[in-house]
Amino acid sequence: MAPSSSPGTPAASAIRRHPQPPDLPEPLPEPAVSELRLEAVLAALSDPLRLHIVRALLLDSDAFDHSCSWFALDRPKSSLTHHFRALREAGVTRQRQYGLERRSQVRIDDLEARFPGLLALVADWTPTEE
Amino acid sequence: MAPSSSPGTPAASAIRRHPQPPDLPEPLPEPAVSELRLEAVLAALSDPLRLHIVRALLLDSDAFDHSCSWFALDRPKSSLTHHFRALREAGVTRQRQYGLERRSQVRIDDLEARFPGLLALVADWTPTEE
Repeated sequence: MAPSSSPGTPAASAIRRHPQPPDLPEPLPEPAVSELRLEAVLAALSDPLRLHIVRALLLDSDAFDHSCSWFALDRPKSSLTHHFRALREAGVTRQRQYGLERRSQVRIDDLEARFPGLLALVADWTPTEE
Repeated sequence: MAPSSSPGTPAASAIRRHPQPPDLPEPLPEPAVSELRLEAVLAALSDPLRLHIVRALLLDSDAFDHSCSWFALDRPKSSLTHHFRALREAGVTRQRQYGLERRSQVRIDDLEARFPGLLALVADWTPTEE
């Protein structure tokens, strides 16, 4: 039985938030809050690697946003670029360009406003044993 | 701004439940509650037609389960068969064979137990204007 994941349970309250640093680069193109579509967000989250990325950002982030190297994922860079872009284009994450690298954060407030409880389900997700 | 969809709000409380009739056919093969996978459920729900089907069952059902003709969907029968099977195989719906027709219901209790709040998001979903 998976742990409960309604708002207020441990998984949801374990979601980390970091204060916004000054002088950030502008976000890359993304849908506005009003443009977020449930079907697009669910499609972005229906991939185990992308669930892993979002869950890691929610529970383990130690900075405002993180580059793809932070996740230590054993995948080709082109594949990772695709997955990080898919998350941004669906509105799950916000990406900013810092020189040569892009860093991602989860749009926690935007997703909670539109799809309350969804991120708690992601935080509670456990990968299958391979 | 979409309406709020946390448990207890109107959309969630509008989910209809119908008592189980006696002498039902056995369910077709489906994952057990413990086998439900978030990524598979989200993938099944990431399609607008499937979201429409699940939302209609949640909010408009007037019987325990419904055959695909009840939805009055303007799609080829082979396409509908595919979508209803995808929902069952992901564990979103339960299907039973009544003679020549299959009827579907949403596994409300199983999904609420494993992914609380997810069905409220589906109930609150609004299709894009085409």
